[in-house]
Amino acid sequence: MSQQITTVTIRVRYSETDQMGTFYNSRALEWFEVARTEHLRRLSMPYTEMERRGLMLPLVEAHLEFQGRARYDDELSMAVSCAMVGRARMRFDVAVSQASSGAAVTRGHTIHALTDTAGRPIRPPAWFVDVFSCKSESE
Amino acid sequence: MSQQITTVTIRVRYSETDQMGTFYNSRALEWFEVARTEHLRRLSMPYTEMERRGLMLPLVEAHLEFQGRARYDDELSMAVSCAMVGRARMRFDVAVSQASSGAAVTRGHTIHALTDTAGRPIRPPAWFVDVFSCKSESE
Amino acid sequence: MSQQITTVTIRVRYSETDQMGTFYNSRALEWFEVARTEHLRRLSMPYTEMERRGLMLPLVEAHLEFQGRARYDDELSMAVSCAMVGRARMRFDVAVSQASSGAAVTRGHTIHALTDTAGRPIRPPAWFVDVFSCKSESE
Amino acid sequence: MSQQITTVTIRVRYSETDQMGTFYNSRALEWFEVARTEHLRRLSMPYTEMERRGLMLPLVEAHLEFQGRARYDDELSMAVSCAMVGRARMRFDVAVSQASSGAAVTRGHTIHALTDTAGRPIRPPAWFVDVFSCKSESE
Repeated sequence: MSQQITTVTIRVRYSETDQMGTFYNSRALEWFEVARTEHLRRLSMPYTEMERRGLMLPLVEAHLEFQGRARYDDELSMAVSCAMVGRARMRFDVAVSQASSGAAVTRGHTIHALTDTAGRPIRPPAWFVDVFSCKSESE
Repeated sequence: MSQQITTVTIRVRYSETDQMGTFYNSRALEWFEVARTEHLRRLSMPYTEMERRGLMLPLVEAHLEFQGRARYDDELSMAVSCAMVGRARMRFDVAVSQASSGAAVTRGHTIHALTDTAGRPIRPPAWFVDVFSCKSESE
Repeated sequence: MSQQITTVTIRVRYSETDQMGTFYNSRALEWFEVARTEHLRRLSMPYTEMERRGLMLPLVEAHLEFQGRARYDDELSMAVSCAMVGRARMRFDVAVSQASSGAAVTRGHTIHALTDTAGRPIRPPAWFVDVFSCKSESE
Repeated sequence: MSQQITTVTIRVRYSETDQMGTFYNSRALEWFEVARTEHLRRLSMPYTEMERRGLMLPLVEAHLEFQGRARYDDELSMAVSCAMVGRARMRFDVAVSQASSGAAVTRGHTIHALTDTAGRPIRPPAWFVDVFSCKSESE
């Protein structure tokens, strides 16, 4: 089954640049979070709703590749998708490119544990499986 | 009575610069927080201990002046002091300068409410008055 | 003459929250920058174009009031306007509120110098006066 | 030949926490930068000096693992080392742990290109090889 991809557009903030004239590397992880937030909203399960239900998705791993520059006020397009990894982890893949030219800027993925609000690992609840199972890697 | 001043030294991080080649303006507020943290520790009342006792100091006001540049890896010296403002507010004053030359970089102050952990305004507890009363503006 | 006001909408990022559960104070200055960027674009003089013409607007002063909470994913509405201050300074006023309820979140202003790319103060060029003079405080 | 390791101590800033009560994930990359900066200074080749000589080390890749929590004001210990990767890339490995307990917080590595100030890839200059060759992975 084909994976759902959400496209999110942002602009590079001045606060996100550094003296090299491009975005500072850690901002990519903040953009990935914006992409995840919008993707979950599109799947009708906003992350705020997840937290209200007692489920948190803390990062356990992140991998980033820096492919090209992005300057202040550049419009960037982010393509994001997600999938279960094994039984109790979730993976989000994000690719960020220049909205005008399509030039690659950065891409990567984050792996998330499923925990309760105290940070203890939990198995995915039924409502979670309903939302995400169709996007499992095993299909 | 003379006010106690704490001096704190930090270095400008690359992540704190922007494409203008100096520090991005919002970083000053983050440095002020580092200064407050060390000042309270020096007064034997770390902010972590305050929060453990159920007292929080959310910002209600901030004022900043930007006086000079500071580049990546510059060593900065911060002079910080605090005082009660009225009966239930606290003010921290911070002056940031180049450690080597003494050139002014930024200065300002922040005004903080005293609240419980739910964010409700409270009157200063006895232990708080003990620690800070001698630094009251009225003396 | 009535001043032009631009309204800009943003969402609070998880990276902008802190352990108090609301946005960290320095983020307000980053949001103000987003507001300025969109306001200048609306006035047909994007800041990137200003910099291309050799004019920069470094902050010399900032004042902020924190009025209410804003949590992760809250939609915020920012109203921004600008005016010349004297002959060679510019002031932006920003008011941030909850988009749904209108509850005030934070407001403040920033004062900017006009400098060349080397950071030297300059008088406003003719094109700058054309764009902004009608928004001068003296009118 | 055994690799040189530099140990750097930092404290978690309030601005680095998020509403989950631990540090926000992107801060790890900012801490890694602090570790790199101090490591290069210890090797008598501060990054500021590299940039003065026209050599920049932009990130091309980053990998992070999040192992444990770190709260506001926790003192963290970072162990950092570096090595050449192939002929024109450099890798920094960083492990961050709680200074008091030794509990692992986060670890990872960053891979850096060697470029001139215009961002064009360059081969390592002689002075660079002098400083870092003894730390090459091939030895």
